[in-house]
Amino acid sequence: MNRVAVLGAGSWGTTFAKVLADGGADTRLWARRAELAHEINESRRNTQYLQGVTLPEGLRADSDARSVLEGADQVFLCVPSQQLRALLDDVSESIPAGVPVVSLMKGVEASTMMRMSEVIAEAGGIDSDRIAVVSGPNLALEIAREEPTAAVVASDSSETAMAVARTARNSYFTSFVNTDVVGTEYGGVLKNLVALAIGIVDGVGYGENTKASILTRGLAEVTEFAVAHGAERTTMHGLAGLGDLIATCNSPLSRNFSAGRLLGMGYSRDDVVERMQQVAEGLASVEPIASLAELRDVRMPILDQVRAVLLGRMLPREIAPHLTTGNEPEGETHDF
Amino acid sequence: MNRVAVLGAGSWGTTFAKVLADGGADTRLWARRAELAHEINESRRNTQYLQGVTLPEGLRADSDARSVLEGADQVFLCVPSQQLRALLDDVSESIPAGVPVVSLMKGVEASTMMRMSEVIAEAGGIDSDRIAVVSGPNLALEIAREEPTAAVVASDSSETAMAVARTARNSYFTSFVNTDVVGTEYGGVLKNLVALAIGIVDGVGYGENTKASILTRGLAEVTEFAVAHGAERTTMHGLAGLGDLIATCNSPLSRNFSAGRLLGMGYSRDDVVERMQQVAEGLASVEPIASLAELRDVRMPILDQVRAVLLGRMLPREIAPHLTTGNEPEGETHDF
Repeated sequence: MNRVAVLGAGSWGTTFAKVLADGGADTRLWARRAELAHEINESRRNTQYLQGVTLPEGLRADSDARSVLEGADQVFLCVPSQQLRALLDDVSESIPAGVPVVSLMKGVEASTMMRMSEVIAEAGGIDSDRIAVVSGPNLALEIAREEPTAAVVASDSSETAMAVARTARNSYFTSFVNTDVVGTEYGGVLKNLVALAIGIVDGVGYGENTKASILTRGLAEVTEFAVAHGAERTTMHGLAGLGDLIATCNSPLSRNFSAGRLLGMGYSRDDVVERMQQVAEGLASVEPIASLAELRDVRMPILDQVRAVLLGRMLPREIAPHLTTGNEPEGETHDF
Repeated sequence: MNRVAVLGAGSWGTTFAKVLADGGADTRLWARRAELAHEINESRRNTQYLQGVTLPEGLRADSDARSVLEGADQVFLCVPSQQLRALLDDVSESIPAGVPVVSLMKGVEASTMMRMSEVIAEAGGIDSDRIAVVSGPNLALEIAREEPTAAVVASDSSETAMAVARTARNSYFTSFVNTDVVGTEYGGVLKNLVALAIGIVDGVGYGENTKASILTRGLAEVTEFAVAHGAERTTMHGLAGLGDLIATCNSPLSRNFSAGRLLGMGYSRDDVVERMQQVAEGLASVEPIASLAELRDVRMPILDQVRAVLLGRMLPREIAPHLTTGNEPEGETHDF
């Protein structure tokens, strides 16, 4: 039996700890706050982040990261993206030598634009063939309710990916493997931009044709971006790209989709940030991704339009598929 | 100014006639019933098929197909798939020589498993480089309401595709072109099978993760099918494949999604057919597509499961992404 450590007891970290425990692993979950660790152990609940879900017997929480990490065969990290580096500075010496270190996080470090696996390698001093990332159409609450779900485990090393996939698998959760870390991570980041665009047209009041067109062309342009950064095209058409994008756009809980809707309804960027209290990841990554796209000469017409709306230079109702085809009104445009 | 003929005044034929007229074409619409032609001309309405929509001035209806076809520069066909051959037997001599003939239909002829463009070539005696097909995320009522929409026009001949795309374009409707007729047509047929599968899991009560996984893996397997029959992979990831699939799955009006939901709720195939009055296209194509897949050695695990549910050999709640990965429980499965 594997002994696994999960660092971070938010909704996704707690859910993933349940997935691992339900798959048979002896699972230790680090919660920063002692009261939360106490609640999880005493009542088998995490009421703040995962209401109504009973956690399994094989899951124990602890607020001491070092004792959670001790003896772990695999380590899963699930803290807010911008706090990963600080966490690793604190705990990386306690991570057992040679074991897989797995990112459950979606995002990039704002100050460096590094992907989470890159931060783990740099700040944790971990070899890339020990690092894995998990991504896919994974709304936490649905998994906690044991609805059938699939995810992708990616690592430079197939062996590492397979070892993690074998641990992260049970009757309701399947892990597929691949070796495209870049694509698997970028899928989880870039989908937020497309969700923002779809939210905007939804807020304007357009229907399924418009949203389906934006989704299709949006996936195409973020795929070009990811491929220009080393990703495989197939990954972007798989669970970590398309799959995650669809689940996000259909979830009423998606912050990015909701931010887009408010923009589409006519609120300014500042209004949206204020109303949402928490900045949607997609809003924060529009400018950095647009800069990186320019650097690599990737055309991203939908992203450009989202940017124009955010800057108040374009009305939301002007975002439409027929504006994303460049300047070829004579029928020269090709469907990809 | 182009003079165009549209044969078939159902909701999609009438909507497409409006698209053409709004793009500046002198548009003649054939309605089989004289009363419908009369209503369209007198009240600018087609109340049976397109409630609440006012039709444009440049659209005239007629119940005489010959006079509709006379002098047309482009001919668009939009009758039920199973009636196309009989229509062509009647009218093909009246189609002006050398003009593009365009299928707006999605489906295959049940008795021959031919695509619509193949029926046009055979029964109409039309050269393949004069034939075009239109497909995409095109819910008729949304287009009739002038919501921004994109579609694909495909023909063996780029010139034909571009000529048609230039005609089928206006302020709310964009036509992209490609030369992949097979992929563009199969996209519109195969999406019904995936919509059926997604409907089933929706009917069971599963959430967005499960549906997104089925959609992603379902698109992958129908793409393999289409590619084995000569389609381009990119077409299946474009508006005529992915785009149409998304719009269908998000439309409460989709017959295939609805049929799937009823199956997921526990109704038998016979119950579903009876309750729906009209057979959903997807239900009718499960067996033929499964046979063709076997013939070309294409694995279609999701289709196989839909088939098993229809035959009463599998419970709907057993359809899940982790059952579609073959028999490799040891982590050997690859995300595509």
